[in-house]
Amino acid sequence: MKVIAKISEIRATIEEQKSSGKSVGFVPTMGFLHHGHLSLVKESLIQSDCSVVSIFINPAQFGPQEDFQKYPRDMGRDSALLDELGVDFLFVPDKNEMYPEGFRTYVEVTGLQDDFEGRSRPGHFRGVCTVVLKLLEIVKPDVAFFGQKDAQQAAVIKRMVRDLNLDLDIQVLPIIREKDGLALSSRNIYLTPEQRKAATCLIKSLREAGRLIENGERDPGIIRNRMERVFDSEPLADLDYIAIVDLDNFQPLATIGSETLIAIAAKIGTTRLIDNMIYRSKE
Amino acid sequence: MKVIAKISEIRATIEEQKSSGKSVGFVPTMGFLHHGHLSLVKESLIQSDCSVVSIFINPAQFGPQEDFQKYPRDMGRDSALLDELGVDFLFVPDKNEMYPEGFRTYVEVTGLQDDFEGRSRPGHFRGVCTVVLKLLEIVKPDVAFFGQKDAQQAAVIKRMVRDLNLDLDIQVLPIIREKDGLALSSRNIYLTPEQRKAATCLIKSLREAGRLIENGERDPGIIRNRMERVFDSEPLADLDYIAIVDLDNFQPLATIGSETLIAIAAKIGTTRLIDNMIYRSKE
Repeated sequence: MKVIAKISEIRATIEEQKSSGKSVGFVPTMGFLHHGHLSLVKESLIQSDCSVVSIFINPAQFGPQEDFQKYPRDMGRDSALLDELGVDFLFVPDKNEMYPEGFRTYVEVTGLQDDFEGRSRPGHFRGVCTVVLKLLEIVKPDVAFFGQKDAQQAAVIKRMVRDLNLDLDIQVLPIIREKDGLALSSRNIYLTPEQRKAATCLIKSLREAGRLIENGERDPGIIRNRMERVFDSEPLADLDYIAIVDLDNFQPLATIGSETLIAIAAKIGTTRLIDNMIYRSKE
Repeated sequence: MKVIAKISEIRATIEEQKSSGKSVGFVPTMGFLHHGHLSLVKESLIQSDCSVVSIFINPAQFGPQEDFQKYPRDMGRDSALLDELGVDFLFVPDKNEMYPEGFRTYVEVTGLQDDFEGRSRPGHFRGVCTVVLKLLEIVKPDVAFFGQKDAQQAAVIKRMVRDLNLDLDIQVLPIIREKDGLALSSRNIYLTPEQRKAATCLIKSLREAGRLIENGERDPGIIRNRMERVFDSEPLADLDYIAIVDLDNFQPLATIGSETLIAIAAKIGTTRLIDNMIYRSKE
């Protein structure tokens, strides 16, 4: 695996691969890789002749009160893991390479970016869209892989790619979970053992919602109510939102539809976690 | 010349050209072509193996009070002119092709877009950036050509291309003028004969500025003052702004620098015209 920090070099390197007819798969990450990331990388390796992973902790998507400074980093472990899997190129630009002096261009997906994660994290999706667009322009992959755990991010990026006529395929792959159901996240490392136990309330409430829908419940109000009860019984958890929305456009639903996303965010201590579940009707 | 209205078709057509090793030049326009546009097209034909011109009157860059509805159109004449010059492909998408239902993604060059044209036309550059980025993603040219007449637009687009790591060359070509110095513009057709005469006050004031700078004047305040006097003596003209700024970043200058742009906007009757002049020091 070749590790590259300069835009001009990764661009020339990938250009060379493409000119020899190879397809390019791309997995953008912020590092501190877990099996969720690795499932994306493995899929890229299966589908593509040449796989590129980026690690860049994007300051533009963190709020001033958020955990940019303390966001976990382990470049040595990450690059060993990716090398072992057979990744071809690891792109690790620094902040000045991505945001040189005078940088001032931003991309926004209006409407989709304002609620839920966007409300709790103002400017977050603007930062995500901008860095993802930049990375896509640099790497020019045939396909890029994102995780369903960041459901609103996935919807925002798919919308951006469609709206701006970017010529690539976006694939969103399922959430990878611990044995007890906790969704993998680089931020899980912040949790104390006690909080780690409490964090299962996210998946418990989603499973509760799943059971209700399986049993025919179609009223989002009732479902939300029963999910909130799961949080009420967990003193360490502080629920931020429960979103019961259309999977594609993130509009709140008056009744459970054919493609419904239920997404939640909660703080466990000072650690903010998110999780979600997709319900697809069988008819 | 092949005329194409669908994104999928122009994309496939250009892909075919590129795969046979041809370079692609691109001139995005809003049609009603004049010799300014044609100078860009001719340069593309000289530099590129394959030249693409687009005609799309972009609603996103017009304010609600502006002339989107009455903006001049003459597709028959335009396409005959381009065909005669030897253009390979003319891309003429309709509004729904460019902005389908649900469209919600926009690009902004913060700071650069707020003053001068941006102040007089709120949202204008956001609309310009968005449509130019979309067109660049669709056509994927090696080089795209813009006119210096829209000086702030040129600066905004160059900044966007740099910031978003778009892999192409942007070339900005000189203003083309009538014999009496009036900068060519599709909007000149709005002028009555009397207004047409009055419209020369734009170039007169720029020439006055040029003379002052030639003679050693370096104080923007004094230059602005003398330019305003030209407008004071023209009752049909209503000056909007005089910008004396750095060519690249459009920041107002305290003293004439090595690359100074002097840009003006004025209304002649209800028609808004712009013009500008670049001063480059000889040392």
